[in-house]
Amino acid sequence: MIELRNDYSYIAHPKILERLLYLSNEINNGYGLDKHCFEAKRKILSLLDSSNSDVHFLTGGTITNKVFIGHVLKTFEAVIAVDTGHINVHETGAIEQTGHKVLTVKNHLAKIRTEDILEILKMHKDEHMVKPKMVYISNPTEYGTIYSKKELEDIFLVCKKENLFLFIDGARLGSALTSKDNDLTLKDFARLSDAFYIGGTKNGALLGEALVINNPLLNKEFRYSMKNLGGMYAKSFVTGIQFEVLFKDNLFFEIAKKENDIAYYLTKKLKENHVNMYIESNTNQVFALFSKDEEKIIKKEVNCESFGYYNNQAIIRFVTNYLTSKDDIDKLIKIIEKIRK
Amino acid sequence: MIELRNDYSYIAHPKILERLLYLSNEINNGYGLDKHCFEAKRKILSLLDSSNSDVHFLTGGTITNKVFIGHVLKTFEAVIAVDTGHINVHETGAIEQTGHKVLTVKNHLAKIRTEDILEILKMHKDEHMVKPKMVYISNPTEYGTIYSKKELEDIFLVCKKENLFLFIDGARLGSALTSKDNDLTLKDFARLSDAFYIGGTKNGALLGEALVINNPLLNKEFRYSMKNLGGMYAKSFVTGIQFEVLFKDNLFFEIAKKENDIAYYLTKKLKENHVNMYIESNTNQVFALFSKDEEKIIKKEVNCESFGYYNNQAIIRFVTNYLTSKDDIDKLIKIIEKIRK
Amino acid sequence: MIELRNDYSYIAHPKILERLLYLSNEINNGYGLDKHCFEAKRKILSLLDSSNSDVHFLTGGTITNKVFIGHVLKTFEAVIAVDTGHINVHETGAIEQTGHKVLTVKNHLAKIRTEDILEILKMHKDEHMVKPKMVYISNPTEYGTIYSKKELEDIFLVCKKENLFLFIDGARLGSALTSKDNDLTLKDFARLSDAFYIGGTKNGALLGEALVINNPLLNKEFRYSMKNLGGMYAKSFVTGIQFEVLFKDNLFFEIAKKENDIAYYLTKKLKENHVNMYIESNTNQVFALFSKDEEKIIKKEVNCESFGYYNNQAIIRFVTNYLTSKDDIDKLIKIIEKIRK
Amino acid sequence: MIELRNDYSYIAHPKILERLLYLSNEINNGYGLDKHCFEAKRKILSLLDSSNSDVHFLTGGTITNKVFIGHVLKTFEAVIAVDTGHINVHETGAIEQTGHKVLTVKNHLAKIRTEDILEILKMHKDEHMVKPKMVYISNPTEYGTIYSKKELEDIFLVCKKENLFLFIDGARLGSALTSKDNDLTLKDFARLSDAFYIGGTKNGALLGEALVINNPLLNKEFRYSMKNLGGMYAKSFVTGIQFEVLFKDNLFFEIAKKENDIAYYLTKKLKENHVNMYIESNTNQVFALFSKDEEKIIKKEVNCESFGYYNNQAIIRFVTNYLTSKDDIDKLIKIIEKIRK
Repeated sequence: MIELRNDYSYIAHPKILERLLYLSNEINNGYGLDKHCFEAKRKILSLLDSSNSDVHFLTGGTITNKVFIGHVLKTFEAVIAVDTGHINVHETGAIEQTGHKVLTVKNHLAKIRTEDILEILKMHKDEHMVKPKMVYISNPTEYGTIYSKKELEDIFLVCKKENLFLFIDGARLGSALTSKDNDLTLKDFARLSDAFYIGGTKNGALLGEALVINNPLLNKEFRYSMKNLGGMYAKSFVTGIQFEVLFKDNLFFEIAKKENDIAYYLTKKLKENHVNMYIESNTNQVFALFSKDEEKIIKKEVNCESFGYYNNQAIIRFVTNYLTSKDDIDKLIKIIEKIRK
Repeated sequence: MIELRNDYSYIAHPKILERLLYLSNEINNGYGLDKHCFEAKRKILSLLDSSNSDVHFLTGGTITNKVFIGHVLKTFEAVIAVDTGHINVHETGAIEQTGHKVLTVKNHLAKIRTEDILEILKMHKDEHMVKPKMVYISNPTEYGTIYSKKELEDIFLVCKKENLFLFIDGARLGSALTSKDNDLTLKDFARLSDAFYIGGTKNGALLGEALVINNPLLNKEFRYSMKNLGGMYAKSFVTGIQFEVLFKDNLFFEIAKKENDIAYYLTKKLKENHVNMYIESNTNQVFALFSKDEEKIIKKEVNCESFGYYNNQAIIRFVTNYLTSKDDIDKLIKIIEKIRK
Repeated sequence: MIELRNDYSYIAHPKILERLLYLSNEINNGYGLDKHCFEAKRKILSLLDSSNSDVHFLTGGTITNKVFIGHVLKTFEAVIAVDTGHINVHETGAIEQTGHKVLTVKNHLAKIRTEDILEILKMHKDEHMVKPKMVYISNPTEYGTIYSKKELEDIFLVCKKENLFLFIDGARLGSALTSKDNDLTLKDFARLSDAFYIGGTKNGALLGEALVINNPLLNKEFRYSMKNLGGMYAKSFVTGIQFEVLFKDNLFFEIAKKENDIAYYLTKKLKENHVNMYIESNTNQVFALFSKDEEKIIKKEVNCESFGYYNNQAIIRFVTNYLTSKDDIDKLIKIIEKIRK
Repeated sequence: MIELRNDYSYIAHPKILERLLYLSNEINNGYGLDKHCFEAKRKILSLLDSSNSDVHFLTGGTITNKVFIGHVLKTFEAVIAVDTGHINVHETGAIEQTGHKVLTVKNHLAKIRTEDILEILKMHKDEHMVKPKMVYISNPTEYGTIYSKKELEDIFLVCKKENLFLFIDGARLGSALTSKDNDLTLKDFARLSDAFYIGGTKNGALLGEALVINNPLLNKEFRYSMKNLGGMYAKSFVTGIQFEVLFKDNLFFEIAKKENDIAYYLTKKLKENHVNMYIESNTNQVFALFSKDEEKIIKKEVNCESFGYYNNQAIIRFVTNYLTSKDDIDKLIKIIEKIRK
C-alpha cells in the first residue's frame, strides 16, 4: 500500500525517540513542572517576542481545544467556527460536553470571514441566545488552506473590537509556517491571537501540543482546567523533551517543509494528469477529484481517506508525511496514468 | 537527592523505548485500531479467561476514571468512593465536570466496606437525592493497602445484588498483583468487576492505561465516550506497543515486584530504626511518621511528599520505583539513624 | 398600544385563577405526587389511547426541552433540529449545557424533511463525530406552520427505522390542534412520537407544560432527571389544577381556537391590504413583510416583534392571544391602510 | 390527618391569588422585564440599604441554587457546604450537573464554622484538587437553626479574607427573620453576603424566590445564566406580583411569624410531655425524638416526615405552615399524651 492517509501514522521522528531513550532513567517532577518543559517553553517563547505569553503542553489536538475552550467560556457563552471546523465536526461533541455551543458560519476555502463573524454577532443580541465570546480558526484549515497575514490581522482586529477571544488551532501549524504561500511568523501568531498551539503529534512527535496563551487573563489558573478537563498527564516531561528536540536545529520546520514539498510535487503531478482539485491546498493535505470508479481502484492500492462527493465526483484526501518519498508519489501517479489512459 | 517521590518520575523502561525506536517508521492506523493495540489486547485477554471482556487504551489514570464514569452514569447517578479516593480528592473535580456526584464514605485502611455501601443506599431512596449506581475502589488504594479476594468477592456480590457497577482503579495494579500479601489474580479482577484497569504510567510505560471492560453493556459505544470526554489520542499504537512489551516475558510483573521488594526492605529498615508507620502498606508506597523537625531534615535530602499530620506527627510518603536501589534506601536510613541517634 | 407581541403576556385565563383561589388552602403533597396531577394526567391519558404513556408536569418550554433531552441522551449523542428550531436559537445554549450538540439542517417552512434526517445520519458514521440519536421538531413550528399527518408519519417511520427518538415540542400544541389545516389528533401524537408536550404557558395557564412520554424506556427514572436538571418544583399541584381546568369543557381547545381564528382574520385583512406574508402560517403567529419605514411606524403603535429582514423587507411577527379582539386587528389595519394609501 | 409535613402544601396565600385574579388580563412583557418585577425589586431594595444590589426572580429553591452556583463558578471551582446542606443532599446532584464539586464539612447544629472553612482551604492548595471558591449556607438551616449576627459577620469576614464568595440560601428566610432568637435584618444579609435569596414558595407564594445579588461582579450577565441553566420563565410577572403583595403591609413577615409562633407552641407542648428534641430549632421546623413504636402511631394520624434515627430513636420533623392552628397542635399533643400515658 502507498501510505497517504495522514501525518500521524508513524511513531515519531527517530531523533525524538533517541533522545527519550538516552534520558530514560533521568528523574523529573511530573505534570509539566520539570526542567524539560521549562526549557522547551523558553525556546518557544524566544521565538515569539511576547513577554506576556505562557506555554502549556497537552497530549493532543482535541483535548487542547476542549480544555482551552472549556477553561475560557462561561456557561452561556459560545465559540464561533466555520462549518468545516474540527471542533464542529470531528470531536464527537467534546466542546459541547464542556457545556458550550459551537456557532457555525459557512466556510470560504475552509476559512472564516470577518463579515460572517459580524453577522453572527448581529444575530445574538439578547439573553435568550448564547453569547458569542470566542472565534476558533485552524491554520492550516481542515482543507489545507492557510490564512494570510492580512486576513489574520483583520480577524484579530474584529475580535478585539467586538470583545471576542481569538483561538488558533495549530495542529499542523508547522505546515502553515513552511508553506510556500505563507507570510506569517510565530511572532505574528503571538501578536494576533489570544492563544494558539503548535502541533507536535502531526509534526514528528510521539504526542503533544504546545499551547501558547498570549492573553494573561486566560492563562490564570489554566492548569486547574487542564486537570479538571482531562488534559494534564503525569509524565509531561516526555512532551517537554520532544519540543526541546523539535526546536533544536529547526527540526520542527524541517519536518513540516519536507511534507509540504512532497505534497507540492504530488499536486503538480496530479495536474499534469488532468486531475482536478476539490480545493487548492497550500500545505501537506491534497484534495483531488476522481470518478467513483477511479476512487475504488485508487483505494485498493493507496491508504487514503474519502471526503464525500462534489458534483458527483469523489473527493480523495492525500496527506503527505515526513516519510513520504517521491517514489511513493510516482507509484500513485502511475496508477492514475493507467486509469486515465 | 534520594528519589522517593513517586513511580512515574522517569521516562520509561528502556525496553519500551528501544522497541519504539525500532518501530519508529512503521505505519499504523490511528486511534487504537492498529495491530499493536489488537495484539496487546489479545495478550491481556488471554490472561483473563473472560470471553466477554474488551480492552481500551487511554493516556492516564485521571482521564480513564473520567471517561469510564462519565460514559456509564446517567445525569442523576452518582459514584460511591471512600473519602481518600483519588476521584474524590486528586482529580480537580474531573468527575463532577462530567456532571456526577462522588458520594463518600469513611475509609478503613483506605478501603471501602460493604456495610458502608449499604448504608449509602439506605440513605438514597427517592428522586430528591442522587441515585448511587457505581462503586469505585482503587487497588492498591491511595495508601498502598490492597483488597483480599474475600473482600473483593463480598463487595462485588453486594454490587450485583444492589444493581451497582463495580469499577476498579488499577493505576498501580501491578504493585497489588505482586504484593507479598496478595491473593488475587488478573482473572479475579475480570470476574469480580464490571471494569478495571491495568496501569502502565506508574509501571514502566511512557504513558497509558489498559482499561478492561468486563460488562458488555458498558462496553457498547465506549469509543464515542473516549473521544467525547477527551480520552482518545491519535497515536494510540504507541500505547499498544508498550503493553505488548510490558506483557512480554512478564516485564510488567517484574517491574512491579522490584518496586515492592525494595519497599519492603525500606519498611523493614525503618522499623528497625523505630520509625512508626502511619498505615501498614502492602505495596510500593510507604507512609511513615516523623517529628516535624525530622521531616524538615529528611525533605532536604530526599525527594518525597508530605501527607499532612497525624497526632502531631508528619506523615511522609516514600514511593519506590524500578530504579530505586538498596543503596538509596541505605542512604535514607543513614540520615534517619543520624537524626534519631 | 395594540398588543400583538405574544400569547403569554397576560397572567392566566380567569377560570384557572378562580379555581386556584377556590382551592387556596387545600393541602397537597408536593413535587407532582398529588391528586390534581394524577387527575390531570388521567384526563390527558384518556385523550391519547396509549396505555404506555405517562405524563409529567414541568414549568415551561425551555426547561421541558432541557430536561427531556438531557435525560435521554448519552454524553456523545446529539439531537437533530432545523436551523430555526427553538432549542437551536432561543434557549441560550440550555441543551448544550447538558452536554449535547444540536445538529442542524436547513428548514423548509420551518419544518424538517426526512431526507435531511437521513443526510445527517449518512454524515455521522464513526466515533469521531457525535452520534445523532433524537429528532426534535416543534408543532406548530417557530414560524406558525404545522406538520400534516403524512409528514409526521414519515418522520416517525424514519426515526424508528434509524433508531432515533422523536420528540415534539408542543409549546403551542393547542394552536396546531385547532388549526383549520390540521389533520392530527392528540392520539396521533401519542402514536407518532416517543414524547411530546402540551403547552400550558402559551395556552391560558399561569405556567406549566404537560410532557407526555410514550416510550416507557424513556420514562424510567425521569423524575430524577427533572430534579437534577432543574425542572421539578415544589407546588406542582398548581400545574395539575391548571391542566384539570384546561381539559374540562374543552377550555384548552377553546382558547387555542379563539387565537387562531383572530389570526386568520388578521391575515385576511393584511392580504386585502396587499401586505405580503414572509411565510404562510397555519396558526396564531403571523409573519408579514413591510418596508423599513412602515416597520418604524407600526412598532410605535403595536407591541410586536421584528424577525430580521428578507429581501430588504422587515419581517414583523404578530401573535394573537385569547384576549385579542377584532377591534385590535381593525385598529392595526387602519394604521396600515393609512401608511399604504 | 393533622398536616405538619411542610410549609408548601397549600397553593398560596389568598391575598396573592386575589391579586393575580384581579390582574388576570393585564398585559406585561415576559421574562422579568415588566413593571411588577421592577416594583417588587424596588420594594426589596428599599429594605436593603444597598445601592449595589440587584434582584432576580426565579421559580424555586433548587433552581436558584443551581443557577447562581453554576453562574459564578469556573469549571474547576467548588462550593463549600455542611454535610446536611440542601445542595449536598436534596438536589439530586443539580449542582454537580453544572460541573461543580460540593465540598462538605461536618455541621454543628446544621451550621458551618469558620474553622472548618479554613481547614478546607488548607487542604486544597494545588491544581490537583478543586479550588474552593464559594461558601454556601442556609438560614434557617435544614434543621431550623439560625445564624447569629456575630456568626454571620465572622463567616463573611473569613470569606472576604480568603477570596471566597458567600451565598445564603434563604428558602425560609422569613422564618429566620421573624425568629424570637434572630438578631439579623435584611440589611445585614445585603451587607454580609455576595448573594442571598428571599424564599417565596415556603412563605405564602405560589412559587418564586427573590435572589438578591449584592456583588455587582456576580450580577453581570446573570440573566444569561438564568436562561442557560433553566431558571428563567415566561410569565415572570406572576412572581413579581406575588412579591409586591408579600412586601405590602408586611404580609411576608406576618406569614413567617405566624408559622414560628405556632411552632414554639408545639415545642413547648412537646416538652411538657417529656418529648426530647433532636435539635433545638429556632424556627418553624421542629425535630422531635420518639420510640419507633410511637413513630408508627404518630405517622398514622399526622402527615409528617421521618428524618432517620438517632440513638435508636426516630427523628420526626414537624413543619408548621401559616394554616396550622393551635387546634392542630392540641390534637397532636393528645395523641402523644395517649401514647405516653
